Amino acid sequence: MIKPDKPTLVLNEEQCRKNIHKMAEKARKYQLNFRPHLKTAQSLAVAEWFREEGVDKITVASLQMAEYFADGGWKDITVAFPVNVNEIERINRLIQKTEQLQLLADEGSEIERLSDELKGNVNLYVKIDCGTARTGFDPDDKVAISEMLSVIQKSSSLNFKGFLAHAGHSYSCRSAADVLEVHERTKKMMLDLKTYYIAEYPDLKISLGDTPTCSLAEDWSGVDEIRPGNFTFYDLMQYNIGSCRLDEIAVSMLCPVVSKHKRRNELVIYGGAVHFSKDSIQLNRVQCFGLVRKYEDKNLPQSANFVKALSQEHGIISCTDNFFDAVSVGDFVEVFPIHSCLSADAMGAYTDFNGRKYDHFGSQLR
Amino acid sequence: MIKPDKPTLVLNEEQCRKNIHKMAEKARKYQLNFRPHLKTAQSLAVAEWFREEGVDKITVASLQMAEYFADGGWKDITVAFPVNVNEIERINRLIQKTEQLQLLADEGSEIERLSDELKGNVNLYVKIDCGTARTGFDPDDKVAISEMLSVIQKSSSLNFKGFLAHAGHSYSCRSAADVLEVHERTKKMMLDLKTYYIAEYPDLKISLGDTPTCSLAEDWSGVDEIRPGNFTFYDLMQYNIGSCRLDEIAVSMLCPVVSKHKRRNELVIYGGAVHFSKDSIQLNRVQCFGLVRKYEDKNLPQSANFVKALSQEHGIISCTDNFFDAVSVGDFVEVFPIHSCLSADAMGAYTDFNGRKYDHFGSQLR
Repeated sequence: MIKPDKPTLVLNEEQCRKNIHKMAEKARKYQLNFRPHLKTAQSLAVAEWFREEGVDKITVASLQMAEYFADGGWKDITVAFPVNVNEIERINRLIQKTEQLQLLADEGSEIERLSDELKGNVNLYVKIDCGTARTGFDPDDKVAISEMLSVIQKSSSLNFKGFLAHAGHSYSCRSAADVLEVHERTKKMMLDLKTYYIAEYPDLKISLGDTPTCSLAEDWSGVDEIRPGNFTFYDLMQYNIGSCRLDEIAVSMLCPVVSKHKRRNELVIYGGAVHFSKDSIQLNRVQCFGLVRKYEDKNLPQSANFVKALSQEHGIISCTDNFFDAVSVGDFVEVFPIHSCLSADAMGAYTDFNGRKYDHFGSQLR
Repeated sequence: MIKPDKPTLVLNEEQCRKNIHKMAEKARKYQLNFRPHLKTAQSLAVAEWFREEGVDKITVASLQMAEYFADGGWKDITVAFPVNVNEIERINRLIQKTEQLQLLADEGSEIERLSDELKGNVNLYVKIDCGTARTGFDPDDKVAISEMLSVIQKSSSLNFKGFLAHAGHSYSCRSAADVLEVHERTKKMMLDLKTYYIAEYPDLKISLGDTPTCSLAEDWSGVDEIRPGNFTFYDLMQYNIGSCRLDEIAVSMLCPVVSKHKRRNELVIYGGAVHFSKDSIQLNRVQCFGLVRKYEDKNLPQSANFVKALSQEHGIISCTDNFFDAVSVGDFVEVFPIHSCLSADAMGAYTDFNGRKYDHFGSQLR
């Protein structure tokens, strides 16, 4: 077991592979095209574990990330972000490096400029706002959607692929029932669109994907593809929603304990906002930046032992008397993160409990 | 003026130098040892601008950051973080690379282990908790403080330097009057300690430093040193506290606009939590992740145009009709960050408006 001298993000390969296998099985069961979102792992090593489950198509969050995976041999990539034509050079490089490149058309996307400046062909999904109010067309606004489709149709280098949505509002759910309700509403909106446009575009696909609905929903009739990402690692946000169990969380941060404050029953760890990023959840009506257990403890973390505050490099742990007494300065604690995607991105590196390193696209290229 | 294809952190060198000059002048005026905290800029280039103001002593947030600056020629470094003896190899390397190395003793710090494993001499500050409840000894607990001092005294490689505090609770202030009250309370605690221990330790120093009090307070009698950091760039959190004006903020993020949603008067930018980190403030009772102006607009940003949400790579801007109509997809907006230290750390790079690059310690080494 490693004893790092500074905050270290540990990837539990066995659990991660279990998470991947479970979702791949679900996709097979419902005959869904499984195109995992690699914005969470951002790792060619982890991507290989998907490949071992038969996955040959992936989703990424940026064109830079797409290049990282294309350079690593991935040939079918969806960039699930409104196309940024300012990055036309990167898009044109990606066309050379991939066989199928899917981009996203959103309200106002510069599709004519894209078409003019493309040196090759790309597939376009039209982004639908199924209730998240982040990106996408209002599914009821058929005028705007049809207008976008006709712009796409005019271009010889653009191929309309279908409708894509991300039910990000499932993140505000706090029960499986709530998540399933979001899923049913989203699916209905998307299937209505499919019905409306299928005669004109018989090959159109419906692509959905967020970890809560993909983890919990069992009715996928009419859906063609799922693109969940966070399930690869899961985290406390997903646990809080009800998408996973605590023991399914596959990453944790090992942090050295650097001081103890008995009058407040608080420990200070080396591990702050630059390591975890700064998402939090309300757990038992208290703001929580992570759950904590002793390093090498096999029991699940208890909600009474948690990160109550993060500053740039410090974390403050509030804990029980027992926990306080059992941990010494110089020991390590294992912190289960709130948002594994952001913690992984902030760290830009993984190791396993034996010190084996895994690659990460990380922040090196920003 | 640069036209980047992706989120780019821009450093306004002229304003940054003004901020540095103003604080250096204040330190000179009150005969304070000025030891700026470089956790904000994390840049040898910016550190040179301090050197041009006569600064030859710095503060950093981690031993890794200390090595970066030591390798860049800085010889007198305080690591303002409870000493983590697990990093003894790094500490011993730093002793070789510096002339004066100051570390922090906190409650429970492994001072005897440190002393045993040191290969050279270090100075130790004893950290005092002046009300932040993060790290440090209770200033009223003379028994615990004296005990720590006697442990330090027993070691031939450790030199007690004085008492160090960080009034981090000034960050919850929302007026200059509140900040000054924090400052007066902090100063009183520290000067009481000085009075109590000065006979035994005639050379002991009092080191204070947080941007709000250093920006606003004018009474520094009895204080020996200040260590502010954030003032180098300032940000909206400091603006909200009252520590700076909007036009004193020296970093901003250039972000491409990727879609527009008229029915909500919202713009979507390429620029998310991986670029900004995820601190927010309440501005006009609304959660705000940044203020926005059009790129190349010389007017100050208006509070009606703000980042209302950040996901991993997306930012959602809520804005006025006028702003909405004036900005097109493909344009850039300039986002003033909430917490410049975290945004700079997340980006790990700066450029100026003409494309000149500045170094950043960044996250490369994590």
